[in-house]
Amino acid sequence: MRILIASTNKGKIEEFRRILEPLGFEVVEPKEKIEVEERGETFLENACLKAKAYFERYGIPTLADDSGLIADAISPYPGIYSSRFYSIDFGGKEEVKTTKDEANIRKLLRLLKGKKERSAKFVVVLFFYGGDRGFFVEGEVRGRISEEPRGEKGFGYDPVFIPEGYDKTFGELTPEEKDRISHRGRAIRKFLEIIKGCEGVFT
Amino acid sequence: MRILIASTNKGKIEEFRRILEPLGFEVVEPKEKIEVEERGETFLENACLKAKAYFERYGIPTLADDSGLIADAISPYPGIYSSRFYSIDFGGKEEVKTTKDEANIRKLLRLLKGKKERSAKFVVVLFFYGGDRGFFVEGEVRGRISEEPRGEKGFGYDPVFIPEGYDKTFGELTPEEKDRISHRGRAIRKFLEIIKGCEGVFT
Repeated sequence: MRILIASTNKGKIEEFRRILEPLGFEVVEPKEKIEVEERGETFLENACLKAKAYFERYGIPTLADDSGLIADAISPYPGIYSSRFYSIDFGGKEEVKTTKDEANIRKLLRLLKGKKERSAKFVVVLFFYGGDRGFFVEGEVRGRISEEPRGEKGFGYDPVFIPEGYDKTFGELTPEEKDRISHRGRAIRKFLEIIKGCEGVFT
Repeated sequence: MRILIASTNKGKIEEFRRILEPLGFEVVEPKEKIEVEERGETFLENACLKAKAYFERYGIPTLADDSGLIADAISPYPGIYSSRFYSIDFGGKEEVKTTKDEANIRKLLRLLKGKKERSAKFVVVLFFYGGDRGFFVEGEVRGRISEEPRGEKGFGYDPVFIPEGYDKTFGELTPEEKDRISHRGRAIRKFLEIIKGCEGVFT
């Protein structure tokens, strides 16, 4: 059984390959990136749009994801704009000096500066689209935004996100520690529960 | 296990009750209709938006549907506009003389008048939303649009839809005959396959 990953991000494809191949799935990489207009207003809608677009081009059951950070004080932002938060009008644009991640973080910290409400959550939706049927799972982790970036691990907003019950940011946790509690780790475990628990129903 | 139906249409609720209660589900009717902005461009997106809106209001796992007719000669119309096709700009508006169904059919027949390409399909998406997970199924039936409405059974475009392999319209078939081949009948059987085949995973 083949599953196409709706992404050309090598890291993401390898991550899914590592998880799905031991279960007997063959993970397929798309030949080229499809520019999907993310016109949805939620992670769920955007993950669905991506999965559908890749399925329609390649005809292979497809797994897509969409994820982001929501800071309660400025909810629903960065939200579905997480990866390009620096560039949107809300809160003023931020210059990219080194990386987009760094500019996104700089903007987030600027908007939360002096605010007591620093609670936030990371959310991810995995959407599996098989043509006439499909399913999704959502994973979430609550936490708070640190005053300053800390740690070199992870990516995106990891250096400023402190998960509930921890003092370290995601940027300071090992991949194994992060997987155990992260939105993505939780979503992947639910995804596996369904893929295994519903053998042959979706695939 | 309770399932909320994302509709206040009594007929629809009774139909789902008939199918789901023998399987041990308690079918719940919403106290009031939620006006969901159907801003999606597909049946899948709109069914998802409806299920999510009702779930968020009532906190009960929710089943929504969205359906319509697509006539190939004017594809993707009537499509997601099927129930209010008479009122949209595409193809010119149609006056409601008796019922909306009649006005929709009159407009469809006007737009297909003299056209050789009369092939069409009915599509329905059922979307089950349980909060952090959910699934969908799609059902489809191909056929063609008759020259004139025939039969008093069914609803919507049924009097002008002749399913493949038949000479009668859906309006002329008994409910049992229609269920066996209709988009809705097919989708419901897939829905049941998943609800039963994935016991406890979604519910």
